Amino acid sequence: MRYKLYYWPTIQGRGEFVRLALEEGGADYIDVARRSERSGMGVPAMLRLMEDVAVSRPSFAPPFLKAGELIIGQTANILLFLAPRLALIPPDESSQLWAHQLQLTISDLLTEAHDTHHPIASSLYYKDQKPEALRRAADFTANRLPKFLDYFERILAHNPHGDGYLLGTTFSYVDLSMFQVMAGLLYAFPKTMKRLAPSYPHLLELHRRVAERPRIARYLASARRLAFNKQDIFRRYPELDA
Amino acid sequence: MRYKLYYWPTIQGRGEFVRLALEEGGADYIDVARRSERSGMGVPAMLRLMEDVAVSRPSFAPPFLKAGELIIGQTANILLFLAPRLALIPPDESSQLWAHQLQLTISDLLTEAHDTHHPIASSLYYKDQKPEALRRAADFTANRLPKFLDYFERILAHNPHGDGYLLGTTFSYVDLSMFQVMAGLLYAFPKTMKRLAPSYPHLLELHRRVAERPRIARYLASARRLAFNKQDIFRRYPELDA
Repeated sequence: MRYKLYYWPTIQGRGEFVRLALEEGGADYIDVARRSERSGMGVPAMLRLMEDVAVSRPSFAPPFLKAGELIIGQTANILLFLAPRLALIPPDESSQLWAHQLQLTISDLLTEAHDTHHPIASSLYYKDQKPEALRRAADFTANRLPKFLDYFERILAHNPHGDGYLLGTTFSYVDLSMFQVMAGLLYAFPKTMKRLAPSYPHLLELHRRVAERPRIARYLASARRLAFNKQDIFRRYPELDA
Repeated sequence: MRYKLYYWPTIQGRGEFVRLALEEGGADYIDVARRSERSGMGVPAMLRLMEDVAVSRPSFAPPFLKAGELIIGQTANILLFLAPRLALIPPDESSQLWAHQLQLTISDLLTEAHDTHHPIASSLYYKDQKPEALRRAADFTANRLPKFLDYFERILAHNPHGDGYLLGTTFSYVDLSMFQVMAGLLYAFPKTMKRLAPSYPHLLELHRRVAERPRIARYLASARRLAFNKQDIFRRYPELDA
């Protein structure tokens, strides 16, 4: 099966969670919007699948994945579908529900991280909502972020089956997602993360360990891994990192 | 199977999406936090399952559902689990993925509806973030809400299998969720919804039709259905409904 991923071509964003799973799973895939328009791909091919009313199951927003005739949208839903096919989750329903629950909680954290720089409207520039962003980011770094990280650290530290992975002894796609969140936080909020680091030894260790997995290390060193930047979910604005 | 639902006892909130599925599915369930502390239930029983480190798969936030030994958190994840057991979704994977994708998009809309009155911090009162709320709500009612409703209206209007339900001819739990969103929007943003109504005939018809389903009609008329109020996700602040 050759998968087709559709996502904005210049940011990691939510698509990165799918890219990491495809890379770690050794999947055959095309990152459609990063290919040329001349070849019938690029961003226009992505928008066509969202806007053409002949598409009966369109996605509200990227990323979405084409797997044969199936089109699947919503990041966590794509991972729910892909993970058992790429051996990134144990086959039992209980593990899959728990991993999906963690992924959805990661999605919630991601939305809040995004809203630190866009608390009023995605359609406005950062500079047009900067006073509000300063207030929201102050609450995020002081209250919300520690609350989320406390939760994930606890999952690792108190897992009766081992403290190496979020599911215990078994590596899964949620570890890839947690890696990506930590990478984003370390990029966007270096001062806050330095201050918080002593409280989250398991999360930082997980971040290091995932980066060293052979396929992930190769991916991170490749041109396929886009750099963090100021159009992305995680943005480094020093004034928001108090 | 007697299900145990854990959610805040005084609001509809995210728990309501689970309550509607349990009611329509004719499930045997206990709404634990609404029962008395004397009986070992109430809010303390809910918080215990979130905070006790002996619980190895805790939820970050309510709602969560106990089904035998399994504890499942995140609203959309609970519905993913419950729907096939309550005959609220066809058994094929493709229908389940599509319904889940729609449910996750509803979750996104819900977060944005909440943030109209709390754009800065959930921990602050509305009055302490009112100027920011006015800006965010103006963008929500002018841009974001129509974008979401256009999407769901299109799903209904252009479904080759029929325009009665989000999945086409088959009623499913996503129709219950869409009903709940429309009910919340009509409560919180009556002026905006009156202005937008002509564009969304299918969504308004779906809202009416779900309310008339015998089990839902009985539920809505019962004491089990809490009223909308100003601690909930959907709040009627006339100044945010321009």
